[in-house]
Amino acid sequence: MGQVAWKGFFLSLFDYKTEKYVIAKNKKVGILYRVVQLTILAYLVGWVFIVKKSYQDTDTSLQSSVITKLKGVAFTNTSELGERLWDVADYVIPPQGENVFFVMTNLIVTPNQRQATCPEVGRTEPLGSQTPTKLGSDNIPDALCQQDEDCPAGEAVVAGNGVKTGRCLKDRDSIRGTCEILAWCPVEKRSKPKVNVLATTNESYLKSCRYSTEHPYCPIFLLGNIVRWAGSDFQEMALEGGVIGIQIEWNCDLDKAPSECNPHYSFSRLDNRFSEKSISSGYNFRFAKYYRDAEGVDYRTLIKAYGIRFDVMVNGKAGKFNIIPTIINIGSGLALMGAGAFFCDLVLLYLSKKSNFYRGKKYEEVRSSTSKSLSSPTLNGNQSPEQLGGL
Amino acid sequence: MGQVAWKGFFLSLFDYKTEKYVIAKNKKVGILYRVVQLTILAYLVGWVFIVKKSYQDTDTSLQSSVITKLKGVAFTNTSELGERLWDVADYVIPPQGENVFFVMTNLIVTPNQRQATCPEVGRTEPLGSQTPTKLGSDNIPDALCQQDEDCPAGEAVVAGNGVKTGRCLKDRDSIRGTCEILAWCPVEKRSKPKVNVLATTNESYLKSCRYSTEHPYCPIFLLGNIVRWAGSDFQEMALEGGVIGIQIEWNCDLDKAPSECNPHYSFSRLDNRFSEKSISSGYNFRFAKYYRDAEGVDYRTLIKAYGIRFDVMVNGKAGKFNIIPTIINIGSGLALMGAGAFFCDLVLLYLSKKSNFYRGKKYEEVRSSTSKSLSSPTLNGNQSPEQLGGL
Amino acid sequence: MGQVAWKGFFLSLFDYKTEKYVIAKNKKVGILYRVVQLTILAYLVGWVFIVKKSYQDTDTSLQSSVITKLKGVAFTNTSELGERLWDVADYVIPPQGENVFFVMTNLIVTPNQRQATCPEVGRTEPLGSQTPTKLGSDNIPDALCQQDEDCPAGEAVVAGNGVKTGRCLKDRDSIRGTCEILAWCPVEKRSKPKVNVLATTNESYLKSCRYSTEHPYCPIFLLGNIVRWAGSDFQEMALEGGVIGIQIEWNCDLDKAPSECNPHYSFSRLDNRFSEKSISSGYNFRFAKYYRDAEGVDYRTLIKAYGIRFDVMVNGKAGKFNIIPTIINIGSGLALMGAGAFFCDLVLLYLSKKSNFYRGKKYEEVRSSTSKSLSSPTLNGNQSPEQLGGL
Repeated sequence: MGQVAWKGFFLSLFDYKTEKYVIAKNKKVGILYRVVQLTILAYLVGWVFIVKKSYQDTDTSLQSSVITKLKGVAFTNTSELGERLWDVADYVIPPQGENVFFVMTNLIVTPNQRQATCPEVGRTEPLGSQTPTKLGSDNIPDALCQQDEDCPAGEAVVAGNGVKTGRCLKDRDSIRGTCEILAWCPVEKRSKPKVNVLATTNESYLKSCRYSTEHPYCPIFLLGNIVRWAGSDFQEMALEGGVIGIQIEWNCDLDKAPSECNPHYSFSRLDNRFSEKSISSGYNFRFAKYYRDAEGVDYRTLIKAYGIRFDVMVNGKAGKFNIIPTIINIGSGLALMGAGAFFCDLVLLYLSKKSNFYRGKKYEEVRSSTSKSLSSPTLNGNQSPEQLGGL
Repeated sequence: MGQVAWKGFFLSLFDYKTEKYVIAKNKKVGILYRVVQLTILAYLVGWVFIVKKSYQDTDTSLQSSVITKLKGVAFTNTSELGERLWDVADYVIPPQGENVFFVMTNLIVTPNQRQATCPEVGRTEPLGSQTPTKLGSDNIPDALCQQDEDCPAGEAVVAGNGVKTGRCLKDRDSIRGTCEILAWCPVEKRSKPKVNVLATTNESYLKSCRYSTEHPYCPIFLLGNIVRWAGSDFQEMALEGGVIGIQIEWNCDLDKAPSECNPHYSFSRLDNRFSEKSISSGYNFRFAKYYRDAEGVDYRTLIKAYGIRFDVMVNGKAGKFNIIPTIINIGSGLALMGAGAFFCDLVLLYLSKKSNFYRGKKYEEVRSSTSKSLSSPTLNGNQSPEQLGGL
Repeated sequence: MGQVAWKGFFLSLFDYKTEKYVIAKNKKVGILYRVVQLTILAYLVGWVFIVKKSYQDTDTSLQSSVITKLKGVAFTNTSELGERLWDVADYVIPPQGENVFFVMTNLIVTPNQRQATCPEVGRTEPLGSQTPTKLGSDNIPDALCQQDEDCPAGEAVVAGNGVKTGRCLKDRDSIRGTCEILAWCPVEKRSKPKVNVLATTNESYLKSCRYSTEHPYCPIFLLGNIVRWAGSDFQEMALEGGVIGIQIEWNCDLDKAPSECNPHYSFSRLDNRFSEKSISSGYNFRFAKYYRDAEGVDYRTLIKAYGIRFDVMVNGKAGKFNIIPTIINIGSGLALMGAGAFFCDLVLLYLSKKSNFYRGKKYEEVRSSTSKSLSSPTLNGNQSPEQLGGL
């Protein structure tokens, strides 16, 4: 190309090219197209931007640290323990106050266990320690015996407390006995827990507010209320234990003031209380306090603690204006308008009365061999094949 | 349709239809359109793809497991405990080394508590055990009494340590007394904690590196430095406790080598240290060590532990090239260019000098009734109503 | 504008404007454009919508609560502890059953430690307590001394157990000695742990199912299997400890029935077992049981527990049909088809044989000054400069 051609090329870069339109004086299709445009605009402005705030970039990854603290004492008077006062150091496990904490509400104490041999005693839990109220099987099947050979030494009792010593312990005149085991003796007895440590919780000391529907941002809760809000009964739950989730939901619009970014609390029961025989009903665990007597022999008090475990779960998302999702949504809306125009084209070109006429106007057929028909669009009837070619 | 028509339809499917453009030799609008195109292109390439890497699909759901271990000993000499050496098993709670751990730096010991009756003693914490340095109220108001009737038996002392027995204990000649309670006796005394367990931490043993700005990936930290980096004073924090967050941020570009995927550490104080009377200032909790004497009676040592709780919080996101967000961003950019063309059309057709002329060229009005004006665009002045019709 | 003009404007709003197309009877470009269209359509329907389900809005923020429970006993017979039976309360730390739990499989017991003075004894761990099997250094270097001046009183032993008292303890006739320290005495001895608490785990009691490839949703696991699935050897891991991650992955399609939303379990070893000297190999921690003798003096049993820590990590995402991502993906696909048309235009206008002819047909050059060439497109050769002007 010569210098002149390059100059022409450079100048033509700044020519403005605009699509040529055909105006069809068809009011029906015109109104249809306007309706489509308004629908897309309403969807884009109303739903995408105002309701869903899709002009925001949302971040759901959240760093949270939960500090919990419990207050209050409880008093029990039972035959096993006598009069006993329970304070926070007694009934909160672990004591640190993290996001998961356990409040002991019931317990089975097996004091003064020592490493020794004793008969295996069947416990109340028939199949898995979850249902202390069911007295299904009297004894652990694997520990039943009629003679010493039924108790091979060194073998662990399935679902039991220890390792068999090889002896079968029988009451006199009885045929069936129980294998002797090496274990922390005496083993935990069968018993249905009856006492509730936390019979009352309203002695909790409150600073200046309590969480309620009137004070939705007060971070001080009554245990009894939490259980009630989760749809459970405190007395029933205290007996067999359970798990309660405390969901804290932050849903923040960072385009507004930080003071409008407030938590929303909700409470739900996480263990399956309806299926009494379920593996996941109730909540309990065993722990032991270890002592040493004057002779230096270890003994322990085994505690099977029933209670309510609280799981504080923090969740949240924060949205802030971001140009990229804004552009994406606007761009998608514009592209959709193109699809609307295509749809209206279909109506105009194939469903309207004068579709043939409009087809001839819209599509200008050119043939390079016959240069005489340069700018005269064809108007014959075989334009119908373009039906699928519009897009 | 006949066979011929179907053949014509099939062949016409592969005709190529291309929009007809009108070239307007208007350099102003041409340059404007090029500027719009370049702006969109620069936004798309520079901001969306290079800076924001929006060609990547990001995943923020992250599975992390944190293992922590502390080293070092501390020595204290106090009147209460005498000379005492503290090692890891003494001052780290819980000992397992999970993502939340607590280093005891101060404590109030109440040794040899037994279940008995004793007077309720007001503690230093006026409203909520958070401000041990404030000597606000001498006694717990609910435990004050003048006669036995002020101490109804069985009622728990609000914010106290036990349950009232019904007796009012008074010094001789004094009018006011304190209710007797059933509790772990003696109750915790009012006292301001003075000693710091961890007066020094530089005895920590370091393997080969320490975290610093020069070694940003070394996972060994000095406690004192962590506190300093969080903007706090170790001595002040050790006295009343506090919570420090250790944020570990992974921001990985999986399109690069894995060795470039490194953590970024940051430290911040999570409790509110500025509001001394706040409910969330400082950090402490109570726990007890249980003993049994030769007669088999339980007693315990209650420890109110002040210290620094460290919360290791892992956060991260990983991005990897994905075709879907790439296409979405390119598509949105293209759609936006269509909007740019629409904007330039508005300028050309309604703001330029020869707008009427260009309108006539761009819009070819067709009327089916008068087939004589087939391909001759109208040039009269009443084209202005199309102002809103261009889109 | 007069009333008539306004009426005309209002009516013209509902005129339908449609782009004018030029039909190029060029089968090659026509087929190319159809291929491009089909490719985009296949990508959109096949990949974006069917495979990737991008018509769904996905939420990865997940609230989970994990309840774990262990069953089974183990028996050991060692010279240090004699015959001993271990049950859940002995070997699970912490006992609560949260998402992170530790099963003690090995231990070094240091009984009857008291606060006293004794020589610092070098332990087996040369640099960081991670490699108990390596007998690298006999003594802690910082505790070695030749005279009392080498042990400045009050200084902590680096990597040691206590604070120096100022005395250098030597065997008779030997030149080198060890600093006396104030510590919990006697200090932990050098020893390689040999016993495994959990030699067998198959005594675990199982309810009705075990997790396996046949039962992928059974939530009851054998410890040995978990370790095996994580690619480790239980005996080797029990000796020096380790960390195993149990990933539970929920990938739910909420457009389907909830019963199809099931967890997927996977297991992996999280500590670095290959680097024996690494800082992160194995897993152990120290804890102590505190006792008090008849004289009221505290003593403790220090336990260095080796074992397997299990981290249950729950992860998941849920997708549900949402109109916004659907529209965005459709819109992007449509915009991409516009880019395809632009590409085909380039082929037609600059690479085909009759490119000049098609250029003249597509671009209608108008000049306002010469109104005589109104609708006759120019056909001369200097159309080539439009090469970059098509978009």
